[in-house]
Amino acid sequence: MPRTITAFSNPLVKQVRGLRDRKNRRREGLFVAEGLRIVAEAHEAGQVPAILFFNGGEEIHPLLAGIIADTEAQGGEVIETDADILCKLSGKDNPQTVLGVYRALDTSLDGIDRAAAPLWIVAQALRDPGNLGTLLRSGDAAGAGGLILIDDCADPLSFEAVRASMGALFTQRIAAAPWSTFLSWLRAGEGMLVGTSLDAATDYQAVAYAKPAFLLVGNEQGGLPPEYAGACDALVKIPMLGKADSLNAAVAAAVVAYEMVNQWRRAS
Amino acid sequence: MPRTITAFSNPLVKQVRGLRDRKNRRREGLFVAEGLRIVAEAHEAGQVPAILFFNGGEEIHPLLAGIIADTEAQGGEVIETDADILCKLSGKDNPQTVLGVYRALDTSLDGIDRAAAPLWIVAQALRDPGNLGTLLRSGDAAGAGGLILIDDCADPLSFEAVRASMGALFTQRIAAAPWSTFLSWLRAGEGMLVGTSLDAATDYQAVAYAKPAFLLVGNEQGGLPPEYAGACDALVKIPMLGKADSLNAAVAAAVVAYEMVNQWRRAS
Repeated sequence: MPRTITAFSNPLVKQVRGLRDRKNRRREGLFVAEGLRIVAEAHEAGQVPAILFFNGGEEIHPLLAGIIADTEAQGGEVIETDADILCKLSGKDNPQTVLGVYRALDTSLDGIDRAAAPLWIVAQALRDPGNLGTLLRSGDAAGAGGLILIDDCADPLSFEAVRASMGALFTQRIAAAPWSTFLSWLRAGEGMLVGTSLDAATDYQAVAYAKPAFLLVGNEQGGLPPEYAGACDALVKIPMLGKADSLNAAVAAAVVAYEMVNQWRRAS
Repeated sequence: MPRTITAFSNPLVKQVRGLRDRKNRRREGLFVAEGLRIVAEAHEAGQVPAILFFNGGEEIHPLLAGIIADTEAQGGEVIETDADILCKLSGKDNPQTVLGVYRALDTSLDGIDRAAAPLWIVAQALRDPGNLGTLLRSGDAAGAGGLILIDDCADPLSFEAVRASMGALFTQRIAAAPWSTFLSWLRAGEGMLVGTSLDAATDYQAVAYAKPAFLLVGNEQGGLPPEYAGACDALVKIPMLGKADSLNAAVAAAVVAYEMVNQWRRAS
């Protein structure tokens, strides 16, 4: 049975609200996903929240009813609350009616089975959490197995990243590793490392991509450091026909990822 | 000669700060672009600000020196200020050292010469200003001539949109029109209207795109209304290989735009 919380002073409200800070997320090993669409996506991917808040003043959507049942069955806590508390938890004026608190995911490289997908996205020092979320979403769409974070990236478990991922956070594996660790791991098995760079000489359509491909995207401002670019099996550029000469990092990744998808589906 | 402003109470500071509100931008016909990179992009595209603020406490970059000279030559006002005022103007703790106030652009459809570019992006009720800015940036990269805004879109002149466009705002034409006006204008000349939709039967690679193509992207939540989809010459879908079944609107537009680019460069 759901318990009801409507007091701002409730310690759980304070704890969940605190999860907007990365250091609290790390310490507690928890993060937040808002909205029925994303919570349902998680559910479909087999993940229920540790704590589920829902607005008791709204009609309960059939999808939500199923999520409530499964959350309770798996020992999670279900809490009926109101719009004011949901505002406070999410920090938004127009909060979603559902908010899930999830246990942080395993982010070890060893958790990744590279043969499980033809494509893995690798982000280097990507600083914008919205970009990370969009990368996850694009990766999911293009059939990637997950996202590997190199160096100092934004937190994929931040509110903004979770929101921008539109649920792909739960369908994609996420790993984090320093560059040297990643490179050793990569070279211990099969895999083609493909970097994107404005300075590359090779057109992104001129390369035959092998599976599994690891698509490496560099920092929004600086692009890939030369050492990283030098370690790639292929370094490709997307033709720039305009004047501003740049693409958003998540957009560039999607354009190259779909070139891979297109090559592979022609071949199959 | 630049004049110096360091008082928060200066009316110009108040006026420019007010440009964060859409209604003030509309009333005054002005908008703001921050950062040397974007202001330089505007300059290269032939546009200087009506008012240029720069941080007098920093060394003047050679690019900035040129922009200052041209702004003054074209009757604009150049104002030397400090980091505190720039914080106040931009609303950010770490402001850029340069901020330009520009005259709003002509957004009439009649200002668009469709033969001037092979591709035009059309956004319908796109609500996220970051998405609009990213669309402008992707359009520039893919050789589009501009962005046509249909129905109630976010403001392309908002701080977020200008920032996400990375200067493409100044290289792309922007027009705004109701759907019926746009459709009449479109059908009065050459042009292939290509819509993207998750429900489309046709793969986006199965269509031969004709120039000029008008690539229509729908609202982030609802996609294209059926009536709009029905008016398209081709309705295409990008294959979704994952579970979350969606792409960010700006990402989807870029993937289809580059398919057009690739077809056209193969043909040429």
